Amino acid sequence: MSAEAAKKAGAVVIAILNDISAPLADLADIVIPLHAGPETSVAATKSYIATLSALVHLTAAWSGDADLLSAHAALPEILSRAWQADWSAGIDMYRDAVSMFVLGRGLTLGIAQEAALKFKETCSLHAEAFSAAEVAHGPMTLVKSGFPLLVLPPQDIAARGIDTIVESFAMRGAKIAIAGKSAFGQELPLQSDLDPALAPIAMIQSFYRLVNALSVARGFDPDRPAHLNKVTKTQ
Amino acid sequence: MSAEAAKKAGAVVIAILNDISAPLADLADIVIPLHAGPETSVAATKSYIATLSALVHLTAAWSGDADLLSAHAALPEILSRAWQADWSAGIDMYRDAVSMFVLGRGLTLGIAQEAALKFKETCSLHAEAFSAAEVAHGPMTLVKSGFPLLVLPPQDIAARGIDTIVESFAMRGAKIAIAGKSAFGQELPLQSDLDPALAPIAMIQSFYRLVNALSVARGFDPDRPAHLNKVTKTQ
Repeated sequence: MSAEAAKKAGAVVIAILNDISAPLADLADIVIPLHAGPETSVAATKSYIATLSALVHLTAAWSGDADLLSAHAALPEILSRAWQADWSAGIDMYRDAVSMFVLGRGLTLGIAQEAALKFKETCSLHAEAFSAAEVAHGPMTLVKSGFPLLVLPPQDIAARGIDTIVESFAMRGAKIAIAGKSAFGQELPLQSDLDPALAPIAMIQSFYRLVNALSVARGFDPDRPAHLNKVTKTQ
Repeated sequence: MSAEAAKKAGAVVIAILNDISAPLADLADIVIPLHAGPETSVAATKSYIATLSALVHLTAAWSGDADLLSAHAALPEILSRAWQADWSAGIDMYRDAVSMFVLGRGLTLGIAQEAALKFKETCSLHAEAFSAAEVAHGPMTLVKSGFPLLVLPPQDIAARGIDTIVESFAMRGAKIAIAGKSAFGQELPLQSDLDPALAPIAMIQSFYRLVNALSVARGFDPDRPAHLNKVTKTQ
């Protein structure tokens, strides 16, 4: 196990765990509990959001960032509002898609990868995540008229240049949905003035409601992805 | 530029360069020239292979691995033979594909990513690379009857478990081509007894010939990928 190898090599191991009775808890120097309750879904969602929250909390406390700490305290309300945000425009847009891209950058690259994985698992849709800074290096050859994209723009300086990319894809006739305000593509509502470290958590929450509805619209059961088990074993 | 930032932070910067008049050469502490001649293709291939060769050469020299050094000296002959290897079975298999996976692991993960990029750039085919150790975590939901895969097995201990994955995909009716000997799927010829560090270079060489032919078979010009320029600018 790689945590074991890291520990043996003298590293400090911090484990972010939902189930603190897991063997990893004994091995770790520091355990950060998620308190999300049993995760019974194969396509885990609440433990993913709780992990992002724990990472922001840890970062804010570690760096003594009082603003971020107090912004983090408002996360329950932010998550409630994000669940109410209407992203259902994405259902029609992606209902018949076979292949698509999810774009993020910086703090939203991780949720772009999570969204791509959930499109695969629950909708049998081949979505691949890219950094908006990298997609111009080859992958964008695939972006033609009708090609679907979901864009999750970071809410800080890393957003620089995303508009140019999105505009060029819109000019080719790509089908674009984008979180927040945009001159190009279908806007998906996003609360304004969110801390850039919390905005990705709000986006993935709104996305989860969309992808659940999309899975059903495509004829799948989002709680029972084909071929998947809760636990996998790597040889 | 990230090399500049690394240099300022006190790192030793080693630049592997084809054009040693590039500004990066002035910044680097050590320059490793590729001597591949001008790379005029947008979808670079010879500079990619020359880079892998340079990395093996550097690793062998640095670690004083005499066996690897002498194996590396045979690379020109290995590359000639790899160019002659007949991978054309992949043309029919992938001619009409929209979406597919390329699997590698360990030393072949890098070439799996390179192959996926070339499928995108030159064939407008949405290929995504995965480690065979990771594909079971969600992505394999997409692998159904008729789903195309290219498998590039590492020639060392990292190959452990790949047969099990490939067999399970074959049982679902996936269309599988695989480099080297295999009980499942279409075999693509691979020289036997290659050093595990050189086998990926032979595979990507054989792949380049296949992907060039596939690009033409799908009606594209592999030297002129849609929407791409030789140089991209990141804001």
